[in-house]
Amino acid sequence: MQYQNTITKLFNIQYPIIQAGMIWASGWRLASAVSNAGGLGLLGAGSMYPDVLKEHILKCKANTNKPFGVNIPLLYPDIEKHIETIISQKIPIVFTSAGNPKIWTKILQDHGIIVVHVVSSSLFAQKAEIAGCNAIVAEGFEAGGHNGREETTSMVLIPQVKEAVTIPVIAAGGIATGKQMLAAMVLGADGVQIGSRFICTPEASSHSNFKEAILHSKEGDTMLSMKKTVPVRLLKNDFYNTVKNAENNGANEEELKRILGRGRAKKGMFEGDLIEGELEVGQVSSMIKQIKPAALVVKEIWDEFENFKSKF
Amino acid sequence: MQYQNTITKLFNIQYPIIQAGMIWASGWRLASAVSNAGGLGLLGAGSMYPDVLKEHILKCKANTNKPFGVNIPLLYPDIEKHIETIISQKIPIVFTSAGNPKIWTKILQDHGIIVVHVVSSSLFAQKAEIAGCNAIVAEGFEAGGHNGREETTSMVLIPQVKEAVTIPVIAAGGIATGKQMLAAMVLGADGVQIGSRFICTPEASSHSNFKEAILHSKEGDTMLSMKKTVPVRLLKNDFYNTVKNAENNGANEEELKRILGRGRAKKGMFEGDLIEGELEVGQVSSMIKQIKPAALVVKEIWDEFENFKSKF
Repeated sequence: MQYQNTITKLFNIQYPIIQAGMIWASGWRLASAVSNAGGLGLLGAGSMYPDVLKEHILKCKANTNKPFGVNIPLLYPDIEKHIETIISQKIPIVFTSAGNPKIWTKILQDHGIIVVHVVSSSLFAQKAEIAGCNAIVAEGFEAGGHNGREETTSMVLIPQVKEAVTIPVIAAGGIATGKQMLAAMVLGADGVQIGSRFICTPEASSHSNFKEAILHSKEGDTMLSMKKTVPVRLLKNDFYNTVKNAENNGANEEELKRILGRGRAKKGMFEGDLIEGELEVGQVSSMIKQIKPAALVVKEIWDEFENFKSKF
Repeated sequence: MQYQNTITKLFNIQYPIIQAGMIWASGWRLASAVSNAGGLGLLGAGSMYPDVLKEHILKCKANTNKPFGVNIPLLYPDIEKHIETIISQKIPIVFTSAGNPKIWTKILQDHGIIVVHVVSSSLFAQKAEIAGCNAIVAEGFEAGGHNGREETTSMVLIPQVKEAVTIPVIAAGGIATGKQMLAAMVLGADGVQIGSRFICTPEASSHSNFKEAILHSKEGDTMLSMKKTVPVRLLKNDFYNTVKNAENNGANEEELKRILGRGRAKKGMFEGDLIEGELEVGQVSSMIKQIKPAALVVKEIWDEFENFKSKF
């Protein structure tokens, strides 16, 4: 009998495993591979020009007949164009993050699109529910990339968000294995969103230097940085140390933005500059030891989840 | 049939639930109540003068015939006297924290004492195993009070520590309910250490103002502070804000120590000064809504753990 829950039904997928839409990592190759494997693949539109997004959507459609979605950071400057593309391309699912879900949720839903919003607190989860979102992603402090200011970890966040809303809750942050997925589900999640583990797949468009850096990372090698601007979890490198020294010496938001400059994320994650680039990844980085096809990642996580569930 | 696992057998207790040894909170009333309820109560010796510790041990013995233990921060200035008292009083179990477990582990074990060391990383867990410890506590970033520098959360820390050592692993940080206990066990823990939830009991010696402040706290109300000296998770108040402003302006270790001064923890947690005192508590603070007898806390956590385990 096939596993079913609110998330598999909402997205019409086999397993409640969502591959996070990650900048410079999740293009059509990764998203279609995850969707073909029974999870939900997401295109990370935050690092794509509008015409690039359209190209990825077309290629994704050509490579899977399963549902896939698009993640859009709501602060994306050309967001109207992304929304237009998504509607005209009849994308069934949109994950929004980093912004106010009020503005676009209804417009997307009027076109039959399921809208999920990413939050880092129960308060924002409630706001997303009020805005009409179909589900939310609750992202803990351990997650890679942009992150909340309250620093609430998955262990503490998931049960509180679950209690705060009636819509389904997808847990993100600190999940790379079936055991971690089971822990998240025990805490109240209806599904999981996994990012870092999918970077270390051949299908991710991330630079191989970055993938290798993740494979060699150790516990404590990621830290939440840039707290005076937009907090972001990074793999420690020279760029991180420059920021940290500036922060330790009392640098203000403007100075930090100047240090960050432009194009650092692309430089690090897409062009492979491990010294000066920004390397966004979660704390689970240290648990990832091997590059594996995305389909195998989905299968291994699911099998471990199922086996471990029956043992417990 | 009674539940048994490596932790219940190691400590000769009914449930693998350990009440954390907390300064200004866990004296004989709390420790004996938890031990009588089938968990393991710990006296928090870090805030006790040697003669006070002796008095608490005698009263704890008078109030329970179940095993109880003592937590000693290894940086305690008069540690030799504490060790002497523990040995002469034939305390069966000692939890050590904040220091090197090499120095005292063997000495205590030579007197038949079980030694458990608190760590915040797999590397320190391995060092504790090499030092001969009988078990370790793996404490995540979400935990209250003193905390590790790597900021690894329970979700990511527990499975890695479990894989790094062969001795039993007790999870701490982010655990106040049976569901959270089950999540920790799913992640690989053999038992759990619970702090914050036991502060809000009539038996805890914490000031009622502090207990009330926990009951009224909301998500995001605790933060890790003092990272340039000894990182500590605190409930936000005027003192926290003073430290934060100093940190934002680049204050160094010395300046932070000067702001901290002496006796702040006592002032906050024992004397009830919610403005200028230091209020050490974990992120789960926002999940604690009621003062309840320690025995009921143990029972509710265990019942939820058992019920939820069978449902999953």
